[in-house]
Amino acid sequence: MIDANPTAAKKLLEIYDTTLRDGTQGEQVAFTVSEKLRVLEILDRLGIQFVEGGWPGANPRDSEFFQQARKITLQQARLCAFGSTAHPGSKPGQDANLCALLAAETEWVTIFGKSWTLHVESALGITREENLRLIESSVGFLHRSGRKVIFDAEHFFDGYRADPEYARQVLRAAESGGAVRLVLCDTNGGSMPDWLGGVVRQVRNQLPGIELGIHTHDDCGLGAANALEAVQAGALQVQGTFNGWGERCGNANLCTLLPLLELKLGYLTIGTQALRELTPTARQIAELAGLALNPRLPFVGQTAFAHKGGIHVSAVRKMPASYEHMPPEAVGNVRRILVSDLAGRSNIQEKARELGWRNGLSAEAAAQVTQTIKDWENQGYELEGADGTLALLIEEAIGGTALPFQPLGFEVTSTLEQSKPQSHAQVRVEVHGREYRGEGTDSGPVAALDAALRQALTVHYPQLAEVELADYKVRILEGSRGTRARVRVRVESNIGRQSWITVGVSENILEASWKALIASFACHLRPAARESRIASGKN
Amino acid sequence: MIDANPTAAKKLLEIYDTTLRDGTQGEQVAFTVSEKLRVLEILDRLGIQFVEGGWPGANPRDSEFFQQARKITLQQARLCAFGSTAHPGSKPGQDANLCALLAAETEWVTIFGKSWTLHVESALGITREENLRLIESSVGFLHRSGRKVIFDAEHFFDGYRADPEYARQVLRAAESGGAVRLVLCDTNGGSMPDWLGGVVRQVRNQLPGIELGIHTHDDCGLGAANALEAVQAGALQVQGTFNGWGERCGNANLCTLLPLLELKLGYLTIGTQALRELTPTARQIAELAGLALNPRLPFVGQTAFAHKGGIHVSAVRKMPASYEHMPPEAVGNVRRILVSDLAGRSNIQEKARELGWRNGLSAEAAAQVTQTIKDWENQGYELEGADGTLALLIEEAIGGTALPFQPLGFEVTSTLEQSKPQSHAQVRVEVHGREYRGEGTDSGPVAALDAALRQALTVHYPQLAEVELADYKVRILEGSRGTRARVRVRVESNIGRQSWITVGVSENILEASWKALIASFACHLRPAARESRIASGKN
Repeated sequence: MIDANPTAAKKLLEIYDTTLRDGTQGEQVAFTVSEKLRVLEILDRLGIQFVEGGWPGANPRDSEFFQQARKITLQQARLCAFGSTAHPGSKPGQDANLCALLAAETEWVTIFGKSWTLHVESALGITREENLRLIESSVGFLHRSGRKVIFDAEHFFDGYRADPEYARQVLRAAESGGAVRLVLCDTNGGSMPDWLGGVVRQVRNQLPGIELGIHTHDDCGLGAANALEAVQAGALQVQGTFNGWGERCGNANLCTLLPLLELKLGYLTIGTQALRELTPTARQIAELAGLALNPRLPFVGQTAFAHKGGIHVSAVRKMPASYEHMPPEAVGNVRRILVSDLAGRSNIQEKARELGWRNGLSAEAAAQVTQTIKDWENQGYELEGADGTLALLIEEAIGGTALPFQPLGFEVTSTLEQSKPQSHAQVRVEVHGREYRGEGTDSGPVAALDAALRQALTVHYPQLAEVELADYKVRILEGSRGTRARVRVRVESNIGRQSWITVGVSENILEASWKALIASFACHLRPAARESRIASGKN
Repeated sequence: MIDANPTAAKKLLEIYDTTLRDGTQGEQVAFTVSEKLRVLEILDRLGIQFVEGGWPGANPRDSEFFQQARKITLQQARLCAFGSTAHPGSKPGQDANLCALLAAETEWVTIFGKSWTLHVESALGITREENLRLIESSVGFLHRSGRKVIFDAEHFFDGYRADPEYARQVLRAAESGGAVRLVLCDTNGGSMPDWLGGVVRQVRNQLPGIELGIHTHDDCGLGAANALEAVQAGALQVQGTFNGWGERCGNANLCTLLPLLELKLGYLTIGTQALRELTPTARQIAELAGLALNPRLPFVGQTAFAHKGGIHVSAVRKMPASYEHMPPEAVGNVRRILVSDLAGRSNIQEKARELGWRNGLSAEAAAQVTQTIKDWENQGYELEGADGTLALLIEEAIGGTALPFQPLGFEVTSTLEQSKPQSHAQVRVEVHGREYRGEGTDSGPVAALDAALRQALTVHYPQLAEVELADYKVRILEGSRGTRARVRVRVESNIGRQSWITVGVSENILEASWKALIASFACHLRPAARESRIASGKN
């Protein structure tokens, strides 16, 4: 389905990103001013044509953002300030919200107005005619002030369902005020694709002179499908957010829409070259927001091209198209082979090759690794993705060797006195028959344990000093047992750009951390495991 | 859009759940035999018509499941065993996979066969004609053995794209073998809805005598949209999984499809009464799998009816339909008002009412709570959902009172000797000017801390003995600082069916747990906070 034609013949769509405004209405989504500026730069670099930066009239943080954004020279994106029509009681020129929009000093401004009679009468509490005048005069004021105005017709489809003629009048009011784009919003996310497509087609025919946009939400799991319908019915601007963040279930996800529009339907959006940056971009924005990306997201999720079923794995190995509808590289993602007790030995063999055992494993070794994985996963280990721990397992199955050192035990004490936490750890390990002790102090007990373990091991293995702990995660395995639940600790370690992941499981969080740390250090000390990291990269 | 008509006039669809088979091919999705049996009972009770239990020929765990499932008397569901056509080299009667299917002793059996020439020739390595004979003879063998056979045409849409006539021949071969349902699978999830709908319509016209099913995947974020298209084109059986689990991005999510089909499009699936159990069912199944439900899932997710933007909150309060496309109760979910520094004081007022302060807060109190939330969220607290902690904050803003007791400090020691972890905690608290001490021992340090704190407090507050810790979660706040990261601990406590959530943040995981536990106990001791729990229910 990948269209390899040159872009010259493709129809151009406008992509309008509202991650920084509508996106932040999603639960747990928040950015500081400097994070917002960083997102703006990232979206500009990717080639997104419009970036909605925030609502200066509603939020002092957003006013600050627009002030600072002036210092950034954008290459491709147009920055939009967002707001509403004037307050029903105020004249546009004296309306605080509209004045804040002008103060943002952006060439483009987006305002929303009500197009559903229910909202006009019950929420705004004005007559239908007053609302039309409000829209025309608000848009007109911004237009006369030299702004290019995008009009978001809020609740357009609900409005159209209730009173199609009034919904059209709303659009005409905005157009006659001077709006250059009319965006049809499915604000509540409740419309069905075929019906919505039909409405866009009717509007397209009734208002031929102006460009239409589409703004959809995912309340019915149809945000992307609805946007596609609208584009196929003639909308030229597509609004959405990165990672699908937004109010309730979120907005239409641009990470889904960009590949669909560009690679499946043959439109030009940001270009196929930029699309290869899509996955890293999505993850970078998620990192700035401090949120984990939903691993199951189409195209950019961690599992989007992950194969677990035994049949799938062996087929994909021979011929990727057998279970992949497009190459992961087209959207900057990678293929992953998952290992679990479900998957069978063909996955283990494939994984072993990926981890550096280029000739694969003997049948006995593969059987032993499969059995160990089964046992460990029964205990709560999750070896999918934990390539460091898996490499140790495989090495043990091949060579029958134990760890290069023997962990003997630890004691960690945490105290809280006068609101100041303090932790002290002592550990004992055995290397080549000799016992070494280490001590560490930190505010948290895990950091103290890490420091003590390093001290004990670096006497014999000075190379462990280079190992950095890049990430530490804790997952409670059974939620129903309160503070007694088993925990799984996952540690990501690195040296420079090489990284590896190890896991530990226990009812005691410190023991789980201890196990993951030991596996991490052991992994670095074993030559084959080191090689595996080089082979698998960051995975 | 909610259809309130009696069900008599509605067209009945068959819902086919494959959570227990295709669902477990999703990353991190796994069930034990007893968990599988539990899921079967849950789906049966909900009224799902077909439940695919597993693949007995590929997985000994699944054989065991079918053996045990015989003891369960199903009220509504038909249990299906899943498998493939016979191995190209074996006769159906001697094929291990088909024999395992018979041994499962289910009335209904589902087998898949290849309908894409690419797979026939490259993956199976047989001729097209051999594949047709294989399908007909495999289906025929099961049919003659007394089974009702559902045929899954794997990669049907990719096959149709490559060679429509061959794809049709595959369906005819299965039909002539005796299959009673032909299921068209978009195995790789790459098809576009309008095209897919057109194909289903053509097949419908070409094979009028047999019921068609649809099996879609979510690789393009279109799993639900594709299933709707197929149903509108004449498919009668809809396959999917609970929570959308499955290979790669997952299967079409039945939690999305059931409300769409029943409430938006007017089909009869499990009935509107059963739909009111959808959200609890989805969460129960997620709990059995030990997985967190994606909070942004349509209909059943925690944020599906959560409102954060200030305008949304005040409008929804007056008139839910203003920002909700259907009432949350219709799918067993609840409306939630989110509190964050973005939202402003109208959300705080609304939240305070929800938490039991029926007359709202004074302007000063609301401002103080808003400011405190802002400060706390800057430190890494996440107060959305943490109603226990929020109730304490509000109480403090109103009454200016401190906690009913004063936490003074703790000391927790964890040791690991001979692979046995052991933890001991001592705590000190002050109640009404007097110091109390408590001690606790457990394998994990948090459980020991909890035990010690209870011992110290129950001297004065015996009612705390009733409080149960139902859930304990840890989230690392900044992934980039390794074991030194700040952690947020979230504790859910309950007494009977009342529950409340509190949070604590620190660089030291034990201090974070300490803070969350203290807030939990304090919350139970404060009368207004107690009332708030009654008002807000489980929320």
